[in-house]
Amino acid sequence: MFYHIKDLQYNAKPDHPDPVYAKKLQEVLGGQFGEITVAMQYLFQGWNCRGNEKYRDMLLDIGTEELAHVEMLATMIAQLLDNAPVEKQEKAAEDPLLGAVMGGMNPQHVIVSGLGAQPNDSAGYPWNARYTIASGNLLADFRANLNAESQGRLQVTRLYESTTDHGVKDMLSFLIARDTMHQNQWMAAIEELEQQQTAVVPATFPKEKEKQEVAYSFMNFSEGTQSQSGRWAAGKSMDNMGAFEYDSDPQPMGQIPALNPAPAYVHNTPLMGFTKENQPPVV
Amino acid sequence: MFYHIKDLQYNAKPDHPDPVYAKKLQEVLGGQFGEITVAMQYLFQGWNCRGNEKYRDMLLDIGTEELAHVEMLATMIAQLLDNAPVEKQEKAAEDPLLGAVMGGMNPQHVIVSGLGAQPNDSAGYPWNARYTIASGNLLADFRANLNAESQGRLQVTRLYESTTDHGVKDMLSFLIARDTMHQNQWMAAIEELEQQQTAVVPATFPKEKEKQEVAYSFMNFSEGTQSQSGRWAAGKSMDNMGAFEYDSDPQPMGQIPALNPAPAYVHNTPLMGFTKENQPPVV
Amino acid sequence: MFYHIKDLQYNAKPDHPDPVYAKKLQEVLGGQFGEITVAMQYLFQGWNCRGNEKYRDMLLDIGTEELAHVEMLATMIAQLLDNAPVEKQEKAAEDPLLGAVMGGMNPQHVIVSGLGAQPNDSAGYPWNARYTIASGNLLADFRANLNAESQGRLQVTRLYESTTDHGVKDMLSFLIARDTMHQNQWMAAIEELEQQQTAVVPATFPKEKEKQEVAYSFMNFSEGTQSQSGRWAAGKSMDNMGAFEYDSDPQPMGQIPALNPAPAYVHNTPLMGFTKENQPPVV
Amino acid sequence: MFYHIKDLQYNAKPDHPDPVYAKKLQEVLGGQFGEITVAMQYLFQGWNCRGNEKYRDMLLDIGTEELAHVEMLATMIAQLLDNAPVEKQEKAAEDPLLGAVMGGMNPQHVIVSGLGAQPNDSAGYPWNARYTIASGNLLADFRANLNAESQGRLQVTRLYESTTDHGVKDMLSFLIARDTMHQNQWMAAIEELEQQQTAVVPATFPKEKEKQEVAYSFMNFSEGTQSQSGRWAAGKSMDNMGAFEYDSDPQPMGQIPALNPAPAYVHNTPLMGFTKENQPPVV
Amino acid sequence: MFYHIKDLQYNAKPDHPDPVYAKKLQEVLGGQFGEITVAMQYLFQGWNCRGNEKYRDMLLDIGTEELAHVEMLATMIAQLLDNAPVEKQEKAAEDPLLGAVMGGMNPQHVIVSGLGAQPNDSAGYPWNARYTIASGNLLADFRANLNAESQGRLQVTRLYESTTDHGVKDMLSFLIARDTMHQNQWMAAIEELEQQQTAVVPATFPKEKEKQEVAYSFMNFSEGTQSQSGRWAAGKSMDNMGAFEYDSDPQPMGQIPALNPAPAYVHNTPLMGFTKENQPPVV
Amino acid sequence: MFYHIKDLQYNAKPDHPDPVYAKKLQEVLGGQFGEITVAMQYLFQGWNCRGNEKYRDMLLDIGTEELAHVEMLATMIAQLLDNAPVEKQEKAAEDPLLGAVMGGMNPQHVIVSGLGAQPNDSAGYPWNARYTIASGNLLADFRANLNAESQGRLQVTRLYESTTDHGVKDMLSFLIARDTMHQNQWMAAIEELEQQQTAVVPATFPKEKEKQEVAYSFMNFSEGTQSQSGRWAAGKSMDNMGAFEYDSDPQPMGQIPALNPAPAYVHNTPLMGFTKENQPPVV
Repeated sequence: MFYHIKDLQYNAKPDHPDPVYAKKLQEVLGGQFGEITVAMQYLFQGWNCRGNEKYRDMLLDIGTEELAHVEMLATMIAQLLDNAPVEKQEKAAEDPLLGAVMGGMNPQHVIVSGLGAQPNDSAGYPWNARYTIASGNLLADFRANLNAESQGRLQVTRLYESTTDHGVKDMLSFLIARDTMHQNQWMAAIEELEQQQTAVVPATFPKEKEKQEVAYSFMNFSEGTQSQSGRWAAGKSMDNMGAFEYDSDPQPMGQIPALNPAPAYVHNTPLMGFTKENQPPVV
Repeated sequence: MFYHIKDLQYNAKPDHPDPVYAKKLQEVLGGQFGEITVAMQYLFQGWNCRGNEKYRDMLLDIGTEELAHVEMLATMIAQLLDNAPVEKQEKAAEDPLLGAVMGGMNPQHVIVSGLGAQPNDSAGYPWNARYTIASGNLLADFRANLNAESQGRLQVTRLYESTTDHGVKDMLSFLIARDTMHQNQWMAAIEELEQQQTAVVPATFPKEKEKQEVAYSFMNFSEGTQSQSGRWAAGKSMDNMGAFEYDSDPQPMGQIPALNPAPAYVHNTPLMGFTKENQPPVV
Repeated sequence: MFYHIKDLQYNAKPDHPDPVYAKKLQEVLGGQFGEITVAMQYLFQGWNCRGNEKYRDMLLDIGTEELAHVEMLATMIAQLLDNAPVEKQEKAAEDPLLGAVMGGMNPQHVIVSGLGAQPNDSAGYPWNARYTIASGNLLADFRANLNAESQGRLQVTRLYESTTDHGVKDMLSFLIARDTMHQNQWMAAIEELEQQQTAVVPATFPKEKEKQEVAYSFMNFSEGTQSQSGRWAAGKSMDNMGAFEYDSDPQPMGQIPALNPAPAYVHNTPLMGFTKENQPPVV
Repeated sequence: MFYHIKDLQYNAKPDHPDPVYAKKLQEVLGGQFGEITVAMQYLFQGWNCRGNEKYRDMLLDIGTEELAHVEMLATMIAQLLDNAPVEKQEKAAEDPLLGAVMGGMNPQHVIVSGLGAQPNDSAGYPWNARYTIASGNLLADFRANLNAESQGRLQVTRLYESTTDHGVKDMLSFLIARDTMHQNQWMAAIEELEQQQTAVVPATFPKEKEKQEVAYSFMNFSEGTQSQSGRWAAGKSMDNMGAFEYDSDPQPMGQIPALNPAPAYVHNTPLMGFTKENQPPVV
Repeated sequence: MFYHIKDLQYNAKPDHPDPVYAKKLQEVLGGQFGEITVAMQYLFQGWNCRGNEKYRDMLLDIGTEELAHVEMLATMIAQLLDNAPVEKQEKAAEDPLLGAVMGGMNPQHVIVSGLGAQPNDSAGYPWNARYTIASGNLLADFRANLNAESQGRLQVTRLYESTTDHGVKDMLSFLIARDTMHQNQWMAAIEELEQQQTAVVPATFPKEKEKQEVAYSFMNFSEGTQSQSGRWAAGKSMDNMGAFEYDSDPQPMGQIPALNPAPAYVHNTPLMGFTKENQPPVV
Repeated sequence: MFYHIKDLQYNAKPDHPDPVYAKKLQEVLGGQFGEITVAMQYLFQGWNCRGNEKYRDMLLDIGTEELAHVEMLATMIAQLLDNAPVEKQEKAAEDPLLGAVMGGMNPQHVIVSGLGAQPNDSAGYPWNARYTIASGNLLADFRANLNAESQGRLQVTRLYESTTDHGVKDMLSFLIARDTMHQNQWMAAIEELEQQQTAVVPATFPKEKEKQEVAYSFMNFSEGTQSQSGRWAAGKSMDNMGAFEYDSDPQPMGQIPALNPAPAYVHNTPLMGFTKENQPPVV
């Protein structure tokens, strides 16, 4: 169960409205790696956590924090939209600033949300739940989380570079710092789990059931051998259970597929050389 | 540019048709972490790679391999659908096996694809490009890749557990082994990049521009302190640039938001205590 | 900012696992009118609220409560999935109960979420943000909210009818009661706003700028006049600003459209009677 | 069955082309609350109507009218796109009007639809059927309809404010008036149904099966008590079946969740303190 | 503008309810090539038609007819859902027919639509506007239409094969016949346009601006030369403007890509061999 | 299985960066009829091909070529984005060129992909698999393919018209030529299949099972008879199996639908004239 307090986790107040920037900032609110993604992802991972109460608690801690980040961004965007223009195009042409603004802002910020933030990304695409994962395997999921925080921090720094508004920069410096912590946190949690298990997910699948001969082989499917100089092409494998090999000319190990003709009742293409009355027998 | 050969990378031939299993197997073909995802993700990361030819080559190697996995799965699914039933429901009721089959298969496998595989997941949801990321920052993206291979291998092992078909298991044992390699590969590539840079993405954003005081603090937003015992709550941070702290009672640092009234031309709710003719002045 | 406590708002514990029912219950978690929808909708309406602090507070109260409902449903679904079967189809055929279960459950509950709830609906379709609205006009939005609570309660009662599990029914009886409250709440809030404004949204658009002659006329576009007996076809209009009329044979008031030919550079169909070298002049 | 006549329901002819406005106007054609939404929603509600012929007829009347609105908007948009520019960016830079136009228009209006309207919204996002509801319960659905007409009219008035084109304003004044009628119509139909049933949807679910003690209680989950002054926090409930209460400090009534460990065959995270060979028994 | 009459275009009455079949039949109502697709596609093509009134009229004729098919299918599905079961799973296990039904039906047909049809496909995926095209070039679009009617008729025949219900078969025999007509119609319209123009779309793009040397060459990118025996590999081209060639070993004609490093402000991966302070100059 | 070589199939190098054009060019990379669509469509058609090895080989030839086109476009877009600006809006206002650029580019090209191409269209909408079809019936699918190449070439010519960059035009002239070939190819393949079968898809459904009396009748559902002058309204049908008729006043042949009331347990609207306790018996 949740309680809400009115104060924001950190300041979210721009110096000036900027509806074009409001559109861009939507990316880290409702985009693929925005705050809604991490909030929902961590909460569902926590709720689905079976045993392992330490991790459940940690996931709910951070998921709850991310809700506060959603709130900060929504608040900031609404203020960046203060008095967003709904003028006629001709005026925009006379006034280059107005023209640039109206060309670059998202019209839905006026028409649909009435100067409010939306749970969408910077292209106006709605957030959707396929951005998240809660697999039941925490090592897998913590890797998803480390990725989300890495992509998220990267996006926030790019947004930081593209504004001079001190209020906006102040808020972003907070989010960047929290993403620093959260990357560190997932690295720490991953290290813990990798020490308990093997590094390959899932750790519980028996080695003998996987095709060992291709389990540590790097295959060179793109002409050129620059990739041979990587750590992944020689030496001990990262899971300490094998040795990397470099296969410079990988060969097929499987059949040339030949599918059976379809039964008549699915009305696929008749086989060549057969009439429709005289189809080959179904195998 | 690509060339195709007809032989599969590995065997993909079931012992018996099984249209219910065909539906499930779609997950690792066209699902969030299926083979289409990794193929597209690695190829776009390679094509977008600016400099760093070793990584570009490696990405194109593995992206090209994943196309072969898409092909194997599509071929397997088509064969699992051989002679899939399109019978009347009454018959299905008389015959429990038929009933279970018809209740559990995806009707689109007959109606839409005529016993062929689809680029969809096991719920029939179409693959979409928001499953992928190519951010231009390789450390971020390699973390995405490690996650994709972890989720993918996890899903394949679950599918392995739910069939007794030797042909299917044989193919899955190959995919599981390749996912072992690919997890190892991304771990190796991540290690390389982390040694060159700092571990926090992006490495190039100046420390002094982020809010240092919250950059290493774990905040306890969910009641209970089980999370305090984790590696993330004390000790040196993973990036070696700070020390973890545990904040047992995190307090807000920001304002209570109060938004300006909207201008009249967006027709938002009139403020209480004002008539529609007599709106408060816009600030 | 939010705080989380571990206790659920109400009991969420089934008597027995039931993975088929788990699939159905997803509808009111991640469906069009599920708990994620109302949580996100109310929170964004609150965050976007300009002035009108009473409504902002109320929206954040109820949005925060809905997060607790998301949590209850996720918890219930995870338990309904306890030990969900991943057996071979042949076994399912021998055992009708197993067959019915495996035919009716969502395979992603095993393959993707590892026996956890997903932010998806009962067809496996992911939640997306276009399910929500925060328009900046509270009367419009409270109508959206009343609809969401009406559709939501309707769906929960249908789910109540299709189980005999006492634990599930107990939880649903709580959700049904809260939806009763929430329908009442939105009706009350709507009444408040309608008394302050006119009932037509937005109240602030000048009457003289709309085409008055069609503002209260019911038009009979489907043959048959059963619709004439409704309240909407005669008497004072609900906004008290006009009188309903019934137009039994509505006639067009507009032009027959005739579009200009496209300029050559868009390569649309050449006009008939013209060669491609000799196109008609662009108007 | 439908018949079509060529005349538009009302004039749809702009004074001048304006491709930037064409993009915006797409919102009320193919957006969440655009004319395609209401056309499809009303027709499906009519077709699914079981008994209650008066309502079926009425729904088909208005659904059929909305098809005419789709036609008017498509026609208007095509004309606003007359001769839309496909010039080189450099030219656009020399000519601020051209630059503003090209920055603000949707490139798909040239590349994809060749100066034609699209069934998309103002962000270019395609219309989809999850925008609609036909639940089988008419009181629930009429509330959905009242909401759709409220959001729709709000969006049209915002579009009216952002143009000076007399032809466009003329058409919008017609749509605004029809939305006035349609809001009135749904209010009238809702009143009819609420008088026959109770106001809470569905009316047919037995009171004794819902958790009465929380059916009229407003819960204060967001700090601060501004919400206590609302109509929803005291007095008789709107359904006349209870009395509103204000719960200033709502407490949890449910368990602290503790999920069972997953069975080994789903390969979730091993429990801490157990090896992978030695998992705890499944309950 | 449209008028509606209550009579269906053709009978739509099943002999018996069959909720599993109702789910399947959704494919040709709300699927990729269902009746909503063709209705919307033809209407938008008609509304966007610039000049060429014969084609505009024809498109509106057939688009309007398709609305009647949507209506027939919605009606049929609602009747197939009469009394669809919402029983407990245990009962389903005792009764194999019930079990098969409940495993195979779409739960949203009860929970969401209350025994009504939905604008979704047989996997429960909602119809969306990206299924349609109205490009402004009628020859291109008529090819889209011929495809839609071909896929549509194929799907309906597959549905015909999977039922023994005479009422359903009767309705499908009507739809199959109309699809026969509509395939013929688009073939006729295509022939008309191809005789006026060249067969390649668009006909108006100057030959000299395309790279002539590859305009009629079949390239053998998949090992094996079975494709050489096709009509496309030798002889006069279908547009009568060239001769097919077979290129058995196609070679690259382009550069090996080498992208410039990114500017520092996007925080992409630092180049290897450079420190973050010492990045290579941007070209 | 696939092999990749580093050389592009054809030159893909712009004279100058142009981030606005990069956004537009995305349409033919990741749009509805872009190169990802045809690559995936042809490969899945090939992989699902049952028998008919000539066609399977041909499909895999061309599907593999389309992957090279995806690569060329991704490479071109990355170069068009070289040094794309991330400046403050105020600067943009001072400099009209910069303003036009920043208003017209896709912000995700900086924030999300770090100056790389995305698998999205020109509106930023992600590619999805519902753009493709592999039905198992090759004549149906080749019509889909001819449509895709027609729409695709149309879009590329429109893009050609809107740039003066010689490098871009050079690449597009190659793609236009290949689309010429591919349109010719599908026309040739269609002719082959139509000569073997009848022209109506599927050829294998028995004539006597379709409602013959409406199989060749053009129905005039939109007032006005311009459509009567088309080839489709008179003369021999294109499949040589009937004669076109023109039905100037098509009449309904079906029932007026009247649905049964819903059972009580779905809680639909109570019937008028019945109380909720006293519902009519279910038929």
